[in-house]
Amino acid sequence: MNNSDKFKKLYAAERVKIDKLLTDALAKRKPLSLYEPAAYLLSNPGKRLRPFLVLIAARAAGSSFKKVYNAAVAIEMLHTFTLAHDDIMDKADKRRGFPTLHKKYGLNTAILAGDGLAAVAYEYLLKDCSINARQVLTLFTKSLVEVCEGQSLDTDFELRTDVTLPEYIEMITRKTAVMVETCCAIGAELAGAPKPVVKGLSAFGKNIGIAFQIQDDLLDIMADGAEFGKKIGGDLLEGKKTFLFLTALEKADSGTKPYFLKVIENKGIRKSEVKFYKELYTRLGVIEDAQKAIARYTNLALKSLRAVPNEEDRELFTWLAQLLIKRTN
Amino acid sequence: MNNSDKFKKLYAAERVKIDKLLTDALAKRKPLSLYEPAAYLLSNPGKRLRPFLVLIAARAAGSSFKKVYNAAVAIEMLHTFTLAHDDIMDKADKRRGFPTLHKKYGLNTAILAGDGLAAVAYEYLLKDCSINARQVLTLFTKSLVEVCEGQSLDTDFELRTDVTLPEYIEMITRKTAVMVETCCAIGAELAGAPKPVVKGLSAFGKNIGIAFQIQDDLLDIMADGAEFGKKIGGDLLEGKKTFLFLTALEKADSGTKPYFLKVIENKGIRKSEVKFYKELYTRLGVIEDAQKAIARYTNLALKSLRAVPNEEDRELFTWLAQLLIKRTN
Repeated sequence: MNNSDKFKKLYAAERVKIDKLLTDALAKRKPLSLYEPAAYLLSNPGKRLRPFLVLIAARAAGSSFKKVYNAAVAIEMLHTFTLAHDDIMDKADKRRGFPTLHKKYGLNTAILAGDGLAAVAYEYLLKDCSINARQVLTLFTKSLVEVCEGQSLDTDFELRTDVTLPEYIEMITRKTAVMVETCCAIGAELAGAPKPVVKGLSAFGKNIGIAFQIQDDLLDIMADGAEFGKKIGGDLLEGKKTFLFLTALEKADSGTKPYFLKVIENKGIRKSEVKFYKELYTRLGVIEDAQKAIARYTNLALKSLRAVPNEEDRELFTWLAQLLIKRTN
Repeated sequence: MNNSDKFKKLYAAERVKIDKLLTDALAKRKPLSLYEPAAYLLSNPGKRLRPFLVLIAARAAGSSFKKVYNAAVAIEMLHTFTLAHDDIMDKADKRRGFPTLHKKYGLNTAILAGDGLAAVAYEYLLKDCSINARQVLTLFTKSLVEVCEGQSLDTDFELRTDVTLPEYIEMITRKTAVMVETCCAIGAELAGAPKPVVKGLSAFGKNIGIAFQIQDDLLDIMADGAEFGKKIGGDLLEGKKTFLFLTALEKADSGTKPYFLKVIENKGIRKSEVKFYKELYTRLGVIEDAQKAIARYTNLALKSLRAVPNEEDRELFTWLAQLLIKRTN
């Protein structure tokens, strides 16, 4: 078995374990009115990328999976909590093909089950903390603060007409990348890793998180609808200021710019126009720019792996990075 | 100056300091779209009872105020976050005479500013943690988990017709008393107090928290409307299952019981009926029962102060307990 097959098997096996841990975490808790909706949230089939990163970061830093399973569960809970509240704010009806929490249980329950999940996330993280609890909790809290700030910036962008590409990168860093960074950071910290290892793994997480989000923007227009589980061009339909859109706006000339300004003005486009904008993106080289940006951030991530002592661990992170940027959903 | 005047002055002075710390905590943070609404939340004039308890618990346990100001700020932020989300769930338009956060800024901002405040609460608490971070954070997290559970139970009660008095006490313990307990517990823990002192102060907080909530139920029907800042009999108007209501339901005979069952059935009463129900409460001795329960929990609180080494500290807690149960708003 080559390493790639080995890593694939490992990820699959750990996903199963993480799914079970997430189910068990809330199974016996009461009141049901709080924990049943929270469990529904956690049961939504995710990639479990974040908890897997906690595990492999801990191992790469000299510890073992079993010492950080609670922390892995914690970060998935925290991430899932942010999705639940985001879905309310976005008025989203579905997530990964399933009704969103507020659609299924109503607004009040969705707010409260989200809050409860964030609280239980801290409870789980604390189970795996010993001497460096303060350090680990500070990282975890930082990611929570920044995800709120990122979400707020994202909302600000909807009303602004002058958002720049650097501002966009700043926003997705806070909204998405910092939590991915935190997965690696707390895995390493819980393993008691020396500073350069923590720093290297953190940089891996942050940069792969940015690449991941730009990839998301790209998939929104390029992916196969059935597989992606979302509407193609959903970001354009909603007038979202994504990497693609802002790059296009920057590159457009007097002939094409009005089309993009119109998207801002009308807060989105019609479904029948998606094809036209996709062609415009291609013509302006925006698709390629996104691919290059993904490659750039991925390379930054891979470079920072030099701090990881063991070769097979470096290979595992590299394999995971490739998997993420080659994903089709 | 006698001790009572001294304590009064101390509380007033610390309230001013806490108000300033709360204002300063968010003043320079960005994005404004997140922190301005959060600051609005914190600016709502409260008793600042919880942060004051953190301060005096720390001092009673041998530390000083200045070592726990961040923890005091943290607990007020956490408490305020729960109020913001509760107000959404209760569809409340006003709190202490001011528009609620969601009324002023809309639903999305209220959810997110609440989340952000909870996150920053952890950030502040961590500033005051050193060796026993894990212990302190566990207490803080427990209070957050329980406040969510308590809120969920409270919502369950709205739909149930068979709520018992012990269940009610359990609910208010989680929704209100545990966080008051936590104030005392983290103050003492941060001071590095020995276990019996932490335990004694925690028991004070928990029992005074229960007394505080029953007092709230009592004030709802007994208080002077103008001073109380709420509608008299608001709980009855909404059909809430309070200490008074559940005691009345238990004590009522075949002649009076139908009146209370009607409240449950109709999910509340009309404004014109408040006077009638107040008289019914009085006739059934429910007002007296509430007063006795408040006295009972207050006495439990005061007894647990035996663990506090210094006499003046014990007097301060006793003074505060009296202040709370004699309050008129």
